[in-house]
Amino acid sequence: MRIVILGFGAVGQGVAHVISLKKDYLQRKYDLNPQIVAVTDSSGAAINPEGLDEELLLNTKTEKGKISSYPDYGVPGVDSLKVLDEVEYDCLVEVTPTDIDDGEPARSHIIKAMENGKDVVTSNKGPLALSFKDLDACAKRNNVEFKFEASVGGAMPIINFAHETLAGCSIESIYGILNGTTNYILSRMANEGSSYEQTLKEAQEMGIAETNPYQDVEGIDAACKIVILANSVLNLPVTLKDVEVEGISRITSESIALAKKEGMLIKLIGEASPDALEVSPRLVRQGSPFAVGGTLNVATLKTDLADDVTVVGKGAGSVETASAILSDMVNIWKKRK
Amino acid sequence: MRIVILGFGAVGQGVAHVISLKKDYLQRKYDLNPQIVAVTDSSGAAINPEGLDEELLLNTKTEKGKISSYPDYGVPGVDSLKVLDEVEYDCLVEVTPTDIDDGEPARSHIIKAMENGKDVVTSNKGPLALSFKDLDACAKRNNVEFKFEASVGGAMPIINFAHETLAGCSIESIYGILNGTTNYILSRMANEGSSYEQTLKEAQEMGIAETNPYQDVEGIDAACKIVILANSVLNLPVTLKDVEVEGISRITSESIALAKKEGMLIKLIGEASPDALEVSPRLVRQGSPFAVGGTLNVATLKTDLADDVTVVGKGAGSVETASAILSDMVNIWKKRK
Repeated sequence: MRIVILGFGAVGQGVAHVISLKKDYLQRKYDLNPQIVAVTDSSGAAINPEGLDEELLLNTKTEKGKISSYPDYGVPGVDSLKVLDEVEYDCLVEVTPTDIDDGEPARSHIIKAMENGKDVVTSNKGPLALSFKDLDACAKRNNVEFKFEASVGGAMPIINFAHETLAGCSIESIYGILNGTTNYILSRMANEGSSYEQTLKEAQEMGIAETNPYQDVEGIDAACKIVILANSVLNLPVTLKDVEVEGISRITSESIALAKKEGMLIKLIGEASPDALEVSPRLVRQGSPFAVGGTLNVATLKTDLADDVTVVGKGAGSVETASAILSDMVNIWKKRK
Repeated sequence: MRIVILGFGAVGQGVAHVISLKKDYLQRKYDLNPQIVAVTDSSGAAINPEGLDEELLLNTKTEKGKISSYPDYGVPGVDSLKVLDEVEYDCLVEVTPTDIDDGEPARSHIIKAMENGKDVVTSNKGPLALSFKDLDACAKRNNVEFKFEASVGGAMPIINFAHETLAGCSIESIYGILNGTTNYILSRMANEGSSYEQTLKEAQEMGIAETNPYQDVEGIDAACKIVILANSVLNLPVTLKDVEVEGISRITSESIALAKKEGMLIKLIGEASPDALEVSPRLVRQGSPFAVGGTLNVATLKTDLADDVTVVGKGAGSVETASAILSDMVNIWKKRK
């Protein structure tokens, strides 16, 4: 399986890392031999039809800061779309930075690959939140596989879980804590009685919240994920502008203390159902699966037969997110061979 | 897909019920038309090669108490093994009562079906806990599918989840609350400060604990599930006698109160790993995914890449357990067609 990785930040590097780690396992268990034939970043590309070395890719990026410095096979300045035109490959791994205004350049990358008959795996929320139906239709038209487990909840598997593991059930709605940063802030506020501003600052110092935390704390990141789940699991043709969003920045330590007295916690909950599409702070009961703390993500699928089924996992992390991409790649391989 | 159901208690009736409920859905979504051609209980069988009516099966059992009273197609006194010999079918659903001494009669039913080249789905813990490797080898030798998601945790999907959804990860160990009755008792003791004896009595009055609660409260039921998970997910060739088991009957309200003071709860935890195979009461932290209350089941898979991934769901219930059997049937059908 020849792979092109577009984007070589934390997730892209995670993909190279897990492929390197799991080579023997994948060969032995699935007869799968993943070969990275091209990688791009903003500096250009590294391209070798015979396969690039994963460790050398990671070292090059760490030491030189740009993938186009890859010895012998570096191609400075080349455009990603051009790479897709010129390289022979089977599966695109699209992991460029998320853009939620127009979904570019990921959207164009994905469409080009599909139109060339290639399978696509992505963790990129932007194009999915803005134009899910177009991308899904494009995949079907070109008869290619399109997988995006990593775009929702990192290593908390939910999309394939709904489709495969719960094959006999209809899913009626989805509730979830879909953003680890806000869950961390709210959990600390509950445990320590600290204020929102102070807790956010500490989370930023620890690298859990970003310098510009807007998309996390105002619920935009969770809203993107709700759109992806609504489309892929509930088959609702919605986009980001359809979601009612309220973040956590106005939650006070007093309201959290009040809730706690009643055995409740405040969590930022996303909901997708035929009647509602929203992200907002809500009360959850202590002892319920939604009472999880730290940066954990959690999602509950309301089913017709199995009642509520809940999945909890790490919402972020380079290797964790890459593991979801790898599982998607394995499942594509199992279908194709 | 022609189905034989052996055993027509709560789970068997649940299977007939969900097949009746989901006929159109299964046809539309998977082109699957499940036809129940035979059902047995201790009274005999109902057999019709053209398919039995699910509602009439359920009504007959409810009103007459025995399936052999099914109008026109009832066969009193016939033995289940004989039914497997004489009926044309594709998939056996084995849901007779669990026996943990010799796993019979389920074990013989399953082996006969496999040797006749039929796929098998079961919720029966007995034969799996006692002779997993033999049954697994028998399925492979006869090139048939063997699925048993419903045997662990009812509607909490864990086995297929580990194999399919987490295809890119290696599973290193499994921890879980695998028995709903004990979780209910421990949760109420924690919430209300009540004694073990009193809480058990209330649980029995509510139908949550059985009149003879031995297998639940002494950890035997959870131990069976740990054996099934150890074999099927971790590939450890163990049986019930390899599990160290301690139940909850000696837990006092004082020890629960003490734990609570430290932000901890006591739960009956099963663990399967290459180093340990045990069921025992352990401390878990409030706010962890293991702090769930009520009759919920929860299981955490420790993975090499995705860190801990946890699933929470209803551990029991007729329709819930049947939904896991239906998902197994759908996945067999998807492979076969």
